[in-house]
Amino acid sequence: MEWEKRFRCEALKSRLMSADEAAMLIEDGMTVAVSGFTPSGCPKVVPLALAEQVRSGKRQLRLGLLSGASTGDEIDSAWAPLGMIARRLPYMTSKPLRNAVNGGLGGPVAYTDIHLGQVAQNARYGFYGKIHMAIIEAAAVTEDGNIIPTTAVGCSQTYIDLADQVIVELNLNQPAELEGFHDIYRMQDPPYRKPIPLTEVGQRIGKPWLSCPAEKIAAVVISGAEEKPRPLAPEDEVSRRIAANIVSFLQGEKTAGRLSADKLPLQSGVGSVANAVLLGLKNSDFSHLTFYSEVMQDGIMDLIDAGKADMASATSLSLSKEGMQRLLGNLERYRDKIILRDSEISNSAEVIRRLGVIAMNTAVEADIYGNVNSSQMNGTSVYNGIGGSGDYARNSSISIFMTNSVAKGGAISSIVPMVTHVDHTEHDVDVLVTEQGYADLRGLSPKERAIRIIENCAHPTYRPQLWVYYEKACDATHSAQTPHLLEDCFTFHAQLRQAGTMLSSEEEKR
Amino acid sequence: MEWEKRFRCEALKSRLMSADEAAMLIEDGMTVAVSGFTPSGCPKVVPLALAEQVRSGKRQLRLGLLSGASTGDEIDSAWAPLGMIARRLPYMTSKPLRNAVNGGLGGPVAYTDIHLGQVAQNARYGFYGKIHMAIIEAAAVTEDGNIIPTTAVGCSQTYIDLADQVIVELNLNQPAELEGFHDIYRMQDPPYRKPIPLTEVGQRIGKPWLSCPAEKIAAVVISGAEEKPRPLAPEDEVSRRIAANIVSFLQGEKTAGRLSADKLPLQSGVGSVANAVLLGLKNSDFSHLTFYSEVMQDGIMDLIDAGKADMASATSLSLSKEGMQRLLGNLERYRDKIILRDSEISNSAEVIRRLGVIAMNTAVEADIYGNVNSSQMNGTSVYNGIGGSGDYARNSSISIFMTNSVAKGGAISSIVPMVTHVDHTEHDVDVLVTEQGYADLRGLSPKERAIRIIENCAHPTYRPQLWVYYEKACDATHSAQTPHLLEDCFTFHAQLRQAGTMLSSEEEKR
Repeated sequence: MEWEKRFRCEALKSRLMSADEAAMLIEDGMTVAVSGFTPSGCPKVVPLALAEQVRSGKRQLRLGLLSGASTGDEIDSAWAPLGMIARRLPYMTSKPLRNAVNGGLGGPVAYTDIHLGQVAQNARYGFYGKIHMAIIEAAAVTEDGNIIPTTAVGCSQTYIDLADQVIVELNLNQPAELEGFHDIYRMQDPPYRKPIPLTEVGQRIGKPWLSCPAEKIAAVVISGAEEKPRPLAPEDEVSRRIAANIVSFLQGEKTAGRLSADKLPLQSGVGSVANAVLLGLKNSDFSHLTFYSEVMQDGIMDLIDAGKADMASATSLSLSKEGMQRLLGNLERYRDKIILRDSEISNSAEVIRRLGVIAMNTAVEADIYGNVNSSQMNGTSVYNGIGGSGDYARNSSISIFMTNSVAKGGAISSIVPMVTHVDHTEHDVDVLVTEQGYADLRGLSPKERAIRIIENCAHPTYRPQLWVYYEKACDATHSAQTPHLLEDCFTFHAQLRQAGTMLSSEEEKR
Repeated sequence: MEWEKRFRCEALKSRLMSADEAAMLIEDGMTVAVSGFTPSGCPKVVPLALAEQVRSGKRQLRLGLLSGASTGDEIDSAWAPLGMIARRLPYMTSKPLRNAVNGGLGGPVAYTDIHLGQVAQNARYGFYGKIHMAIIEAAAVTEDGNIIPTTAVGCSQTYIDLADQVIVELNLNQPAELEGFHDIYRMQDPPYRKPIPLTEVGQRIGKPWLSCPAEKIAAVVISGAEEKPRPLAPEDEVSRRIAANIVSFLQGEKTAGRLSADKLPLQSGVGSVANAVLLGLKNSDFSHLTFYSEVMQDGIMDLIDAGKADMASATSLSLSKEGMQRLLGNLERYRDKIILRDSEISNSAEVIRRLGVIAMNTAVEADIYGNVNSSQMNGTSVYNGIGGSGDYARNSSISIFMTNSVAKGGAISSIVPMVTHVDHTEHDVDVLVTEQGYADLRGLSPKERAIRIIENCAHPTYRPQLWVYYEKACDATHSAQTPHLLEDCFTFHAQLRQAGTMLSSEEEKR
């Protein structure tokens, strides 16, 4: 039987139980930590069984919940509306959880937004208190009781090490062929930490499994849950233009001989712009590309197939249904070109800086001086969180941020006088890119940056307003280092609240 | 003769010239890079000769100027009022330069404020363009033409490597005994960079000299300039109370067994609070302390003398006159306990994170959600810059920020609703300390942080106003993640501008 091939540890067979039984091991007030990174690799049937116990009125639970990044709907979206989440970190993409965090149904949720590369370390340092239960999705359990992860690694090894007890969800619907893709490195902590020995994107430094003492495993649950594939982001013209500007910038670097831009690994995110960048690279004269990222999407397989990419390292495989089929149908082509690592290695300051990763992250809004908001609407409501963007931006060789110049059909300018929340300071943004063009900010003063950002990145309809602010601020401050008018710096946002558009009425009349 | 003992390279003796002659090698439009970090270890006589050539009307010069951090008065303060600085990075403490940067006499100066740990790397990556001339202060030139630095290392090796030509200022007034204190590590760049082999504060990984090809050395100038010692910061009651709160926090960590707080290196800054912390540690039950910092001050020698500290690593020796005499008079005691490193090693993300350094940095203002402004007044006028605070805060095991709760005799609250400039985001601040107490922010949501910061850190006279803002913002935003009112968030600053105090009139009446 399939499950016997996957569940190869005799000593653990006595721990087999149903999802409902396993869920009963989770008690009110516990802190629960789960495997996975983004929806990939998260447990599914035990969290859903637990939610059902609460929904049916059988149990009342308020839990702390730690994960690698966001989770699948089976956790955040199922638990949040039921008020099951008292405390949550480090990241989310769930709409119901977002509502609860921002004061709606299911709240209050104490949500802590953290650099994803620091979560495992902080947990080991004891900053998040005791972890009572880890729930880990597995593709197999080996003869020796080691756990083969599924489509992501995240913080699983740390959560296993810290938890009192572990529930394993052995998911027969996850491909058995994932065995061998992972590279798990157990980090030592100061004062005993050694250099992370990773010097090349494709290097293996750990073991292909998660280690867990048998006595910690409280339950093994056989699951057949389907992991919701990530739909391919739709292509659109704006994304293609942003991507073209990024590729043009990278080609300029190569031509200038400033950095071995075609020899350094790229960070590649998710979504339509990231996909468009990959497509742009496929059609460029770059070759032998490597990727050192959090999340791997279909587009990287396209580059491998086209002979343009040699290697991809990530902590999460986030493929479409077709992408996963392609991977599984061509294992020999991809097996030695894809590595899944712990998120504290994929997002490691040490490794990212050593490899010289070129970072590409998305901004919600950027200001004329180069500060970037990645997370909060009006400085107040958190959307997803900072994620791993800070790990990459701060430690990259070149830190690129990209955004559409406008949102909501032009009612919102993504370039504003002052961002309402800062996730990435002026010190951490080298290049800002919109569909309008790019502003190379390296070595520039704030005033020099403002000129380039307004002229190259802002949407033409908003440039006049931005110039008015900038010139007024320069006049009023005698052109100080970063000219600002604290009484006017958020007028774009006030105008949006009052009139439904950031566009000033003079500009609208034009 | 003394200078012959110091100038041991026969092949270079033909390059001996006067400061005035050497200064003539610097041409208009050049980018000049200098040794040193803070006033320590900067060249003195050639920069002053150059300034004199401009002051006297003999020459007109506009230069780019790169250093390790700030410089002595002989450079920034001498050059800025003469309009000699067109472009400047990465840090400053000079009042005349600050004025020029903020639009005053000597401007415009394009000032770029950068994480000090990234300057050398960015320069090698070509982000700051060509470096034409490096001016390096030396304590000696060895038989083989290697350069022994003086009281700081900074970016000297990188600047030598990148510059077309090098002027050496052999300063006979700097102690010859400094030879052997330095550890110079030449960093390779991606894709060839290897792990930095440093795993202990006291480990040596490089060479005790700067390497420079003889043909690059355009001039050797004999100098007898005195390096202005750093006066001992005056002790004051507020600093002592901040320090006591920090020591109390560290003792709590040790008691909780959360981190080997007494086994991890400390970052120690400059100024009265930093000195008070060192004094507090001397009188605590901590022992075998180590320091991994940018700048080493007198207080660390006190700890070594008291048997409380084993080792200190820095990039700059910034001692008082008495401190330097004490060092030189007791070389055997200190020689194996003090190491001076390149600033890209003292401030290395990789090393700081590996060692688990506990970071202690100063805030100009902090907001109720834990964002920190280190550099800009009213978001507009830069004071010094971010310096190395971001290198340490982001990569530390625990990131502590400290500030007096009020400034200007109570007219300014250092705790405000929203900071006017963000240098350190909410993601990078673990503990906030004032003389009122400390707020441990680890693992907390922004709203939880606000309660602790207002209650534990704000000055009692400002707490009511902060509560009013916080509660009003919670009401208006339905307690979203980070409650803010964009129309009210800078009212403290507006009140200061209009009334000369941030204290609202209702509070003043009490």
